[in-house]
Amino acid sequence: MLATDTLLSFFKETRKHSEALCAPLETEDYVVQPIEDVSPPKWHLGHTTWFFEEFILKKFAEGYTEFDPDFSFVFNSYYESMGKRVVRANRGNLSRPSVKKIYEYREHVTRAISELFEADSTPEELHGLMEIGIHHEKQHQELLLTDIKYILGNNPLLPAYATFPMEYERESHEQDWIGMDEGIYEIGHKGDEFCYDNELGAHKVYLNAYEISNKLVTNGEFLEFIAAGGYKEFSHWHAEGWDWVNTKQVQCLQYWHQVDGRWHYYTMEGLKPVDPEAPLTHISYYEAFAFAQWKGCRLPTEFEWEASQEYFPWGKRWEWTESAYLPYPGYEKAEGALGEYNGKFMVSQKVLRGSSVATPEKHSRPTYRNFFHPPLRWQYTGLRLAR
Amino acid sequence: MLATDTLLSFFKETRKHSEALCAPLETEDYVVQPIEDVSPPKWHLGHTTWFFEEFILKKFAEGYTEFDPDFSFVFNSYYESMGKRVVRANRGNLSRPSVKKIYEYREHVTRAISELFEADSTPEELHGLMEIGIHHEKQHQELLLTDIKYILGNNPLLPAYATFPMEYERESHEQDWIGMDEGIYEIGHKGDEFCYDNELGAHKVYLNAYEISNKLVTNGEFLEFIAAGGYKEFSHWHAEGWDWVNTKQVQCLQYWHQVDGRWHYYTMEGLKPVDPEAPLTHISYYEAFAFAQWKGCRLPTEFEWEASQEYFPWGKRWEWTESAYLPYPGYEKAEGALGEYNGKFMVSQKVLRGSSVATPEKHSRPTYRNFFHPPLRWQYTGLRLAR
Amino acid sequence: MLATDTLLSFFKETRKHSEALCAPLETEDYVVQPIEDVSPPKWHLGHTTWFFEEFILKKFAEGYTEFDPDFSFVFNSYYESMGKRVVRANRGNLSRPSVKKIYEYREHVTRAISELFEADSTPEELHGLMEIGIHHEKQHQELLLTDIKYILGNNPLLPAYATFPMEYERESHEQDWIGMDEGIYEIGHKGDEFCYDNELGAHKVYLNAYEISNKLVTNGEFLEFIAAGGYKEFSHWHAEGWDWVNTKQVQCLQYWHQVDGRWHYYTMEGLKPVDPEAPLTHISYYEAFAFAQWKGCRLPTEFEWEASQEYFPWGKRWEWTESAYLPYPGYEKAEGALGEYNGKFMVSQKVLRGSSVATPEKHSRPTYRNFFHPPLRWQYTGLRLAR
Amino acid sequence: MLATDTLLSFFKETRKHSEALCAPLETEDYVVQPIEDVSPPKWHLGHTTWFFEEFILKKFAEGYTEFDPDFSFVFNSYYESMGKRVVRANRGNLSRPSVKKIYEYREHVTRAISELFEADSTPEELHGLMEIGIHHEKQHQELLLTDIKYILGNNPLLPAYATFPMEYERESHEQDWIGMDEGIYEIGHKGDEFCYDNELGAHKVYLNAYEISNKLVTNGEFLEFIAAGGYKEFSHWHAEGWDWVNTKQVQCLQYWHQVDGRWHYYTMEGLKPVDPEAPLTHISYYEAFAFAQWKGCRLPTEFEWEASQEYFPWGKRWEWTESAYLPYPGYEKAEGALGEYNGKFMVSQKVLRGSSVATPEKHSRPTYRNFFHPPLRWQYTGLRLAR
Repeated sequence: MLATDTLLSFFKETRKHSEALCAPLETEDYVVQPIEDVSPPKWHLGHTTWFFEEFILKKFAEGYTEFDPDFSFVFNSYYESMGKRVVRANRGNLSRPSVKKIYEYREHVTRAISELFEADSTPEELHGLMEIGIHHEKQHQELLLTDIKYILGNNPLLPAYATFPMEYERESHEQDWIGMDEGIYEIGHKGDEFCYDNELGAHKVYLNAYEISNKLVTNGEFLEFIAAGGYKEFSHWHAEGWDWVNTKQVQCLQYWHQVDGRWHYYTMEGLKPVDPEAPLTHISYYEAFAFAQWKGCRLPTEFEWEASQEYFPWGKRWEWTESAYLPYPGYEKAEGALGEYNGKFMVSQKVLRGSSVATPEKHSRPTYRNFFHPPLRWQYTGLRLAR
Repeated sequence: MLATDTLLSFFKETRKHSEALCAPLETEDYVVQPIEDVSPPKWHLGHTTWFFEEFILKKFAEGYTEFDPDFSFVFNSYYESMGKRVVRANRGNLSRPSVKKIYEYREHVTRAISELFEADSTPEELHGLMEIGIHHEKQHQELLLTDIKYILGNNPLLPAYATFPMEYERESHEQDWIGMDEGIYEIGHKGDEFCYDNELGAHKVYLNAYEISNKLVTNGEFLEFIAAGGYKEFSHWHAEGWDWVNTKQVQCLQYWHQVDGRWHYYTMEGLKPVDPEAPLTHISYYEAFAFAQWKGCRLPTEFEWEASQEYFPWGKRWEWTESAYLPYPGYEKAEGALGEYNGKFMVSQKVLRGSSVATPEKHSRPTYRNFFHPPLRWQYTGLRLAR
Repeated sequence: MLATDTLLSFFKETRKHSEALCAPLETEDYVVQPIEDVSPPKWHLGHTTWFFEEFILKKFAEGYTEFDPDFSFVFNSYYESMGKRVVRANRGNLSRPSVKKIYEYREHVTRAISELFEADSTPEELHGLMEIGIHHEKQHQELLLTDIKYILGNNPLLPAYATFPMEYERESHEQDWIGMDEGIYEIGHKGDEFCYDNELGAHKVYLNAYEISNKLVTNGEFLEFIAAGGYKEFSHWHAEGWDWVNTKQVQCLQYWHQVDGRWHYYTMEGLKPVDPEAPLTHISYYEAFAFAQWKGCRLPTEFEWEASQEYFPWGKRWEWTESAYLPYPGYEKAEGALGEYNGKFMVSQKVLRGSSVATPEKHSRPTYRNFFHPPLRWQYTGLRLAR
Repeated sequence: MLATDTLLSFFKETRKHSEALCAPLETEDYVVQPIEDVSPPKWHLGHTTWFFEEFILKKFAEGYTEFDPDFSFVFNSYYESMGKRVVRANRGNLSRPSVKKIYEYREHVTRAISELFEADSTPEELHGLMEIGIHHEKQHQELLLTDIKYILGNNPLLPAYATFPMEYERESHEQDWIGMDEGIYEIGHKGDEFCYDNELGAHKVYLNAYEISNKLVTNGEFLEFIAAGGYKEFSHWHAEGWDWVNTKQVQCLQYWHQVDGRWHYYTMEGLKPVDPEAPLTHISYYEAFAFAQWKGCRLPTEFEWEASQEYFPWGKRWEWTESAYLPYPGYEKAEGALGEYNGKFMVSQKVLRGSSVATPEKHSRPTYRNFFHPPLRWQYTGLRLAR
């Protein structure tokens, strides 16, 4: 268990960091929601605050005054057990509460939490909730960045956000295959450090021998796939992926544009020519699968990934796996509203492993299981081959 | 033809008035688009400016420097002949250009137009375009107000806009029927003053004898319709209206809410109890028709309305008529982009006559033909019975 | 009022004719519903029978035994007042009752009606209902033919229905313009013969001088419109029509196909080369309007059509007019279920005048008002220009 | 490899059996397609025939005359590599080819195949294709039955199909738990007998200790779930399942109806009271999962099912598992069109194990992997608990 003062600094840093991420924005950028998957930055700022108010302050802080009773309705995300809420697709229709008001809300809650933890003693249960609240905010920091990228990157003016060189950093080593033996491997989280419930239930899996690449697939390799007609040949694709390509008229990765006959992509620093040496990103599972098929390879399972992750560098891209998002043996969801965190999404989604350039510090580990629907591309997703 | 200096003051007043209408807004309120029919206030401010830049400055102002070449794409509304444009439903997804930048754009264009007209002489064609541009901006002022009402009135916090008493002003006179004789009446605009092309082609129509009410239908009368089960009895409704009621689960006028068992409505001043004496508003054509059926009356045609309008007060509500929006005899649309103004909407819409509390000064006249699709309710629409 | 025996023969002929129209069908052709607007032939046969059973036999035939109580649910079309019914779009999902059973139903009802009218005396009200029932069945005979055409003409095998030469008959006279004077004209049905309630309320209209063509627009003229890029130039189209063209990717009239670089069309006799001299058909209102715009002409109003109809031949095509489908002065819908016949459709539709090659005998007259939504094309629609 | 004459009798029996399944139908029942997942019986009869014609006769039978060149377009299901095809949702819009014509087609192809195999010698490759063709037809026999049930069971007349007692047969033994040890198990198909490519790649999996029920969940247990408000409590459901329940207003299993306050279900023999002792069927994965949650249990994985299947009776219901449909280690899809059989569906689907009352003889085995999307219910699906 983290010491109270360590926990409190961790909390304060995290709160500050969310605001620092928004510093380059205009007020208007906080408001819009171009697609349902993307939330307005001001919503992220309010929702992460609501989480602390709802699950900690209202229950444990004696004499706490709720900032505004309407906010519970506005900033609940999906917790059915916490009452009614604004329909997700409507978040971008709300001009109020204003950005200024939300910063006041943040300050109000940050102060109240600090006071609560600066007081003499706090029950152990509170420490657990604080950790969840902090990691919850960190998860939203990642979404904040990718949602900001979507908001700016789909604006016809293509405005830059800020300097962000790690987005397009290359992996300098040569591609090679790491060979892994057939046998039993241990999977899942062990130890006392924080993790989500979906990582628990450490268990054995039996893996056939396999090889996994020590390097992410690059833009250059994907350009070859495009040039070879990869988007036009159904045999590389799942039936569902082929429908997606045709219905959406997909012809390149997200944020890619042809300018004067040459491929460019929108980055946080604005439009740039595609760098063939850099790892590709903003790829859907469908495209990752089709690329691997075309290459005569496949995606690793999440177990293969975890079993070999110590032998290759990772952390630049969330990496699609072949695994569906399912419970580990013995998985049990938590009681009450926090039980809605993970378990209810365990159908029709794919697991991603690793972490990305948008992932905040102390928020990645080898057992972390991220999950998204197959067509989604607005995260910093990437691709590592296996065979 | 208006004298140049009169025209110029008219222009400057109009430009100022648009900005005055936005004075009570927070920056965030300028940005959102909760439904496709509602445009973000900042879009209205930019689009009306683009109109002057595109149709006047670019063509007539020698040496004029375009404010930003991308704005043509962002602020074109529907003019197919003026090139590509942001899809209407995406207007609320654009955080940039910022509100501040749009105010700079307005100033840039207002100044350039002023300089153009303060110069020695201007061709007559320019005067006509200026008049259209000014009336175009006035039309958007009306939309600005009703779009602002929608944005705030659909926010769960129901924030007030400003003091706006004329919205709920009563008509103090007793209801009575004005009898009109059978015969030939002259319809359409005559004279030199400004009008839109859809009002031209003054012509004769033959009307049967009819009676028209001297008073708008009130909230109290509509409460009786609700109490009598009007929304539940299909025989009052068009088949299409009945579908609309059932699909959208409509049970009251727009902006009406039950609070503690009593009907309230959102007004520009916030939530208030419904005043039974005030003229109803925010009614669809479907509801207006059903109400009239239930009452054993009908809606007037636009010709009946125009032929008798001098005998009753009007100007508080846009009044639905039974007439479909069709061209007058001899109607010809203007050459070029301005020809897209009216003619291409002459199918599947209903005519509304009069004007509303949102209509700016000098923007209403007895021959003015407004038009909307039958289900729309976000304008200050109302209802006058005939029989 | 028709004499009882005349009425009865009229009834029997009409019943037989419906069945004769279906004689060329395979059993399978009776069942399918490729689009919501098209009903399965067996549904038409059942529904027209249900109409007599429901409105006449159940009310007036003492001791009448209902054929099958479930049929009321299956064969009600849209009469809200007659209880629940199969949703229109589901008609083609019903394999039962079988075709054989429906023919038994027809026989059962035809016999019972005959017996009722062969009995001593029948109240006058019954005569009116019989006339409506017969004309109702005649209306469905027209739909039977056009629905059969749709069913076969959208089958990839393009099977022929039967010999049907009048479908492609030419108008042999030269095109000319009929000049009509400005003035007052009388519109609407007068006299004792059968008509629908929407034709009643004979009244005066004032028309400006106009000219109307003595000839329908031909396929050859429409080929010129296509060749001139008519489907690609938005300025000819209503905004709503332009959306329709682009969303549906419309490039020719319905049933037209390019075969080896030459235009063909599906007819009731199978696929044939388009005859440039024959009147065009299967055109939407949107296309009719765009063609007229391109030609520098316009569509007549329904009043212009009716006022001049005696000076030109008609009856091959339902002719689109510019008029919206609205009630005539003094229009009142009938009491009860029959009141649902016409009035509730008087919004968002266009009037067509004349009649077509699919119209049964004794079912057309100069005052008849047909009505369809602007995009519909599966009727034998056509186009006569005015100016 | 099967001896040629054994193979040929197997083929002939299979062909006959498909036709026997259709014997109770009226011609009309062959035609309709009430939802996209259900195909018209005549389509199944044609498509299974096309498979033999396309993959065997056209390639191996010298001098074979194609029955009708248009049928390739009409009866291709989803083989992108075999050219254009009728869109799945349009199968029910095709009245032609007639049922009679399709039976002629069947006879033509059955005879040609028989002649081909009665000739002196046939290459080994042909044997493999024949086996696939026969098993393909068997798969469609299962669909034939469930599609017929859907067609009749969604008709308002609820007509019976035929006597079919095994549909509602009880499992007479007491429910008990079978305990399985932790350890390594071998999964997948071995040996020479026919199987699909998705069963190949026999491999080891490591399983934790688990218990699996020796009995399917019954209607009576599901009635308790309903009575306990199972459809109204979100905490039992996946988020996606909860949306499905609310959007579709699901309140009971498919084919269940309340009649006079008591639950009935449509069976192949018509409407019957629900038997609480019989195994439930027509359940979606969402409902199966929610039921298991409510019960404090879970669904088995497909590996758990396969590892323990010899200890319990199965074969009445396709049983939902928790496993997503994914490739086994080393999975490679076949070359050419047959490679489209399985692999391209390996995303977003759940595995079902066992077989059902609709499964034809010789078409089930312990390693068989069926797969469907989570909301589908028209198969004879069921549920076995694990913990």
